[in-house]
Amino acid sequence: MNTFGRIFRVSLYGESHGPEVGVVIDGVEPGIALSEADFAADLARRRSGAKGTTPRREPDLPLIRSGVFEGHTTGAPLTIAFANTNTHSADYALFRSTPRPGHADYTADVKYGGFNDPRGGGHFSGRLTLPVVAAGVVAKKVLAETVAEETSGHVAFSLAARIVELGGVSRAAAEARAGTGPASAGTPEADAALWAPELSSAAAEGDSLGAVVECIADGLPAGLGEPFWDSVESLLAHAMFAIPGVRGVEFGDGFAAARMKGSAHNDPFDLAETHHGLRLTPSASNHAGGINGGITNGNPIVFRVAFKPTSSIRKPQRTASLEVPVAADGGGASAPGLTELSVPGRHDTCFALRAPVIVEAMAAITLADLLDIA
Amino acid sequence: MNTFGRIFRVSLYGESHGPEVGVVIDGVEPGIALSEADFAADLARRRSGAKGTTPRREPDLPLIRSGVFEGHTTGAPLTIAFANTNTHSADYALFRSTPRPGHADYTADVKYGGFNDPRGGGHFSGRLTLPVVAAGVVAKKVLAETVAEETSGHVAFSLAARIVELGGVSRAAAEARAGTGPASAGTPEADAALWAPELSSAAAEGDSLGAVVECIADGLPAGLGEPFWDSVESLLAHAMFAIPGVRGVEFGDGFAAARMKGSAHNDPFDLAETHHGLRLTPSASNHAGGINGGITNGNPIVFRVAFKPTSSIRKPQRTASLEVPVAADGGGASAPGLTELSVPGRHDTCFALRAPVIVEAMAAITLADLLDIA
Amino acid sequence: MNTFGRIFRVSLYGESHGPEVGVVIDGVEPGIALSEADFAADLARRRSGAKGTTPRREPDLPLIRSGVFEGHTTGAPLTIAFANTNTHSADYALFRSTPRPGHADYTADVKYGGFNDPRGGGHFSGRLTLPVVAAGVVAKKVLAETVAEETSGHVAFSLAARIVELGGVSRAAAEARAGTGPASAGTPEADAALWAPELSSAAAEGDSLGAVVECIADGLPAGLGEPFWDSVESLLAHAMFAIPGVRGVEFGDGFAAARMKGSAHNDPFDLAETHHGLRLTPSASNHAGGINGGITNGNPIVFRVAFKPTSSIRKPQRTASLEVPVAADGGGASAPGLTELSVPGRHDTCFALRAPVIVEAMAAITLADLLDIA
Amino acid sequence: MNTFGRIFRVSLYGESHGPEVGVVIDGVEPGIALSEADFAADLARRRSGAKGTTPRREPDLPLIRSGVFEGHTTGAPLTIAFANTNTHSADYALFRSTPRPGHADYTADVKYGGFNDPRGGGHFSGRLTLPVVAAGVVAKKVLAETVAEETSGHVAFSLAARIVELGGVSRAAAEARAGTGPASAGTPEADAALWAPELSSAAAEGDSLGAVVECIADGLPAGLGEPFWDSVESLLAHAMFAIPGVRGVEFGDGFAAARMKGSAHNDPFDLAETHHGLRLTPSASNHAGGINGGITNGNPIVFRVAFKPTSSIRKPQRTASLEVPVAADGGGASAPGLTELSVPGRHDTCFALRAPVIVEAMAAITLADLLDIA
Repeated sequence: MNTFGRIFRVSLYGESHGPEVGVVIDGVEPGIALSEADFAADLARRRSGAKGTTPRREPDLPLIRSGVFEGHTTGAPLTIAFANTNTHSADYALFRSTPRPGHADYTADVKYGGFNDPRGGGHFSGRLTLPVVAAGVVAKKVLAETVAEETSGHVAFSLAARIVELGGVSRAAAEARAGTGPASAGTPEADAALWAPELSSAAAEGDSLGAVVECIADGLPAGLGEPFWDSVESLLAHAMFAIPGVRGVEFGDGFAAARMKGSAHNDPFDLAETHHGLRLTPSASNHAGGINGGITNGNPIVFRVAFKPTSSIRKPQRTASLEVPVAADGGGASAPGLTELSVPGRHDTCFALRAPVIVEAMAAITLADLLDIA
Repeated sequence: MNTFGRIFRVSLYGESHGPEVGVVIDGVEPGIALSEADFAADLARRRSGAKGTTPRREPDLPLIRSGVFEGHTTGAPLTIAFANTNTHSADYALFRSTPRPGHADYTADVKYGGFNDPRGGGHFSGRLTLPVVAAGVVAKKVLAETVAEETSGHVAFSLAARIVELGGVSRAAAEARAGTGPASAGTPEADAALWAPELSSAAAEGDSLGAVVECIADGLPAGLGEPFWDSVESLLAHAMFAIPGVRGVEFGDGFAAARMKGSAHNDPFDLAETHHGLRLTPSASNHAGGINGGITNGNPIVFRVAFKPTSSIRKPQRTASLEVPVAADGGGASAPGLTELSVPGRHDTCFALRAPVIVEAMAAITLADLLDIA
Repeated sequence: MNTFGRIFRVSLYGESHGPEVGVVIDGVEPGIALSEADFAADLARRRSGAKGTTPRREPDLPLIRSGVFEGHTTGAPLTIAFANTNTHSADYALFRSTPRPGHADYTADVKYGGFNDPRGGGHFSGRLTLPVVAAGVVAKKVLAETVAEETSGHVAFSLAARIVELGGVSRAAAEARAGTGPASAGTPEADAALWAPELSSAAAEGDSLGAVVECIADGLPAGLGEPFWDSVESLLAHAMFAIPGVRGVEFGDGFAAARMKGSAHNDPFDLAETHHGLRLTPSASNHAGGINGGITNGNPIVFRVAFKPTSSIRKPQRTASLEVPVAADGGGASAPGLTELSVPGRHDTCFALRAPVIVEAMAAITLADLLDIA
Repeated sequence: MNTFGRIFRVSLYGESHGPEVGVVIDGVEPGIALSEADFAADLARRRSGAKGTTPRREPDLPLIRSGVFEGHTTGAPLTIAFANTNTHSADYALFRSTPRPGHADYTADVKYGGFNDPRGGGHFSGRLTLPVVAAGVVAKKVLAETVAEETSGHVAFSLAARIVELGGVSRAAAEARAGTGPASAGTPEADAALWAPELSSAAAEGDSLGAVVECIADGLPAGLGEPFWDSVESLLAHAMFAIPGVRGVEFGDGFAAARMKGSAHNDPFDLAETHHGLRLTPSASNHAGGINGGITNGNPIVFRVAFKPTSSIRKPQRTASLEVPVAADGGGASAPGLTELSVPGRHDTCFALRAPVIVEAMAAITLADLLDIA
């Protein structure tokens, strides 16, 4: 299903080397100010170019095709498209018969009976995260306006994701090494500088690195989510695992909780002054990541997403070919055979450098729908 | 939304101390042999009683209310209910005003405006996993029959979950310590014996433990799942995070993948004799957990689920009370106050001992729907 | 799909001669007062016994299985079941091989590969409208409370369906004939008296009659519904055509609109004092049935539903038998043959006498969901 | 919700005077030959220009934006857009304050809080039926290929809609009058000629006409559809009532069934040679319109759709204005007032002339999804 959400509903379309990629968003509140300029900041965070990211650069200008009139959302489906302009397809011709390890070349071929668009990964390309980021911009506006409205401006919604570990080196360690302290900007460029030693070393080997992204959403009311089946964790994890390259998702203490005792993992309750008056609230300890029984408890929602290392590497890897190979003696061979593949082109050493804004977008899309249902 | 799935659709209902808990399953293939006896084995694996689990024991006999005629599924909605017979509600009266840390008492109260059934956790109770296990039994039958039919009996579907770590001690270490070797049965009783030292120690302290469950599904064809939004990981994680107490889900190498290099994490391709003939397949290394680009690749699907320690503990925890406390001097106090709570009753020291069959059930429900859509 | 609705979601289960029929309703607002007694009035309107209806009478006591605590809805799934107590299955044994004209015997057999429960029509039985009526009672309460709350009590929601034509005789003509005037109660008993001549005549012939039901919903705000695909007409018609035996649905002027000119069919706009102040409103002419462009305009929603004559008739009808017939000379015949069937048992001469409360229930279910989404 | 379908899923977007209108179709089988030329015939049937239709003519060239590679569908979401090139918005400026009777101007304004795009009806425009027709072309191909494949080419799927009544004059009467006989082409041009007297007369009065469209789908297997809630009638009616201007939908005998006796309305069963061998089938009488109990019975599916007369008419109609009117004596008036509106521009005298291909498209979209689920 290419659609996610019950009320705030997001549908994606497009292929890496087709005419365009885009998104249709249904259920957007009418009256939200929106123009192309609103997308610039988040799109810049996703754009490639930092050390460790691929130099393919496209202007990535959002084209609003429906749902906006006189600078405001209309309430009708909102369509945002991005033209594909920098497409060199020749490189990818061989991937149908010789699938790249770690990519969807093989599974897409099986799923679609060989009719999928193989150029640049087609519909499986990371380029589909471009309309995801655009939908995230809209969702963030919906969240900010709804939270402000429902709390008469007393509470501000915030959402922030950043890399907390790359190539096995934590942000704290990288910051200590760089002497930047926790003030680093968290942009792909700043992060690439923080982890420059790891990135340089992996790039020199023709290899790649993974990373862990942490995301924190604050300002949402308690009471969102459902016990079955749409717990807040279920919905957020559903969205996160739709991002190409994600291997794990955890909330609050996450996998570490499995090694803790109940007395250490439970968040005791406190009383706190809120804008609703003195309220019983979970304590600031927040081992639960802001969620009990699948329902938000008013604490910040905290989760982490594990990204695998970039699959495309220069270093040769074994793969198999369905083409008929020519034997060394010049005779024909009738069976397909194993081969080695060095993925051509220039690739992200660590595509996760560009992932935080995508994680934010997916979180915003999910949370906007949750808030709309509540 | 209390329903999960597009074709094989599962709806849950019931409260811990209401008349019953149950499940309605829509989209079940007609003609599958099904009787109450088919549920016995899986229900036994979920039943409490092992060391480290709560002694509440109910007969848990499934009542088939619709969808079965002359011993076979009819294709119409299949309803299975379990009467609640062993309900002592008195213990739970105070949890509305004094919510238990780690539980949904507080969030349920907020979400439902104080109208939720608080007895035994109500609709948030782990007792809801009873109809989940029942639905899992049906889903496993659907999977087994469909895979057998589609492969003319050449391939058998298999699904198995077991605890791989409890209280921070790996299964391998526990088995080595116990001298059982990898032949241990994997029942709650056998597992409770394996990790007896950790369970005894925690129980003595009035505390609790968490665990990690690993699940492996084998025999499914390549090509299941969708790039957006219903990747196989998205759907499985959605279901897993609906199980009470889950904190993390990871596939294949999982979070460890974030610390690997691409050359180590990518699964190279092989050629293999399958029942379809010589085929290009991912290698047995299976770092990806059987999924590329959100689509099954034909390898076993492998994932792990982190369970938090049981929230209910005898050890006193701080919580807050919305009741008006009486001051020491006998005068009334107008503000609610903090208090300490020792959760009464007898509880699972590690409820995850009973979780493997629930993880299997959730996986089966998810995979049956995926297979039906394909 | 056995579920209808996005927020207020209704799932049906059960077979006519199985243990029970029932409904699970998800998304019910918490805090609505609800007890078994609330269902009595509507269930009585559906109950058989009037002249022209079948004498099968069951107590039809609703069993609330989940979702109610201390007399109020909890917000968790609400389950209501009705035991099947008066089931004589022997009559129905032959319908699998000799399908009844007009019934689902044949199509159910094809759809479910012969595994459907054929007794009393199984899941296709009109008995499934019993839980529909129960869900309607809940939906009516949700509508009444929501409208009252949103208008601070200034507006009352109302919903009423009644037969406007039976056996080709309009209510006005029948009332004139009976001298009752428009004050007739609209119960199955009163309606059976109004159309007694037609019912008696058809019953004497062993034949059956159809009818048209009109339904009017008033008090809903303007602005409900969506242009694509969930127009108010689309959703109401979706629900109406799920009632067994419905052949047509029309809104406002309906099919007559196709014979009108625009100047006669368009509703001019008026200005009216509403509880929101002086407002532009559509005029009282209401040719559109309260809906423009798929969206409610604030006028009463008006639609009509055509019910076919009861399919089960005593009068012999031609059907075919898949059983091997015995030829007149006593020899075996190898091919199936045509036969005549007089449907045994006692049946409604006009089941539509019991339909108004079902139409209301379906309308309430649909409108409650629309109001919840808005 | 702007999406329809469970497997074959269609999402619409766009406004009449925005940049474009379009459709995203998810769940299209891979490998279906598709090019822009495939849309020409159906788009021509929808195009305006015949007597009785508006002269707004746009090239209406489909732009395939995703989901097609090397001339075949890929299985990924298929996007088809149509640029809006002939947009004169000035005419529509006054409709926000002075809503056109019969249009969605008022309801859209209420629903979207005044933020809807009012130009040309915005998202409510009949122009949205353009991508509907495009989606119908794809659905027809899916149906034709699936039916051919499942019956090894023995059965051909067919789908045909045509006007059976216009301005109160039946096709038979119009054909008799014109002397064309039943061989008339059924194009908008041919139909405009058939009903020329009615159209000319209404146009001369500045008025408009409605019509009834009948649609027949043949070649589908028995067994499609579900008892609750997705009967074949429910799904088809849901789609039909999403077409702007539809007032009624009926199947088989439709509303006439309410005036028939059971012995006349029931379809007896026959035995027939089919490509599956001698089979029990419903007779050719087909009073049920090919559906029993919500499930297809193998007979042609037959239904009729009532279209209201065009809402936009030159003849002055009463409406109300929210603008402050100026009193005759030159003083200001503080209250809004009633006014008369002659809708400017040139409009279809009978927009239903262009409706048959839209009805076919909606039917094809619905049936393709039904066939995919089965």
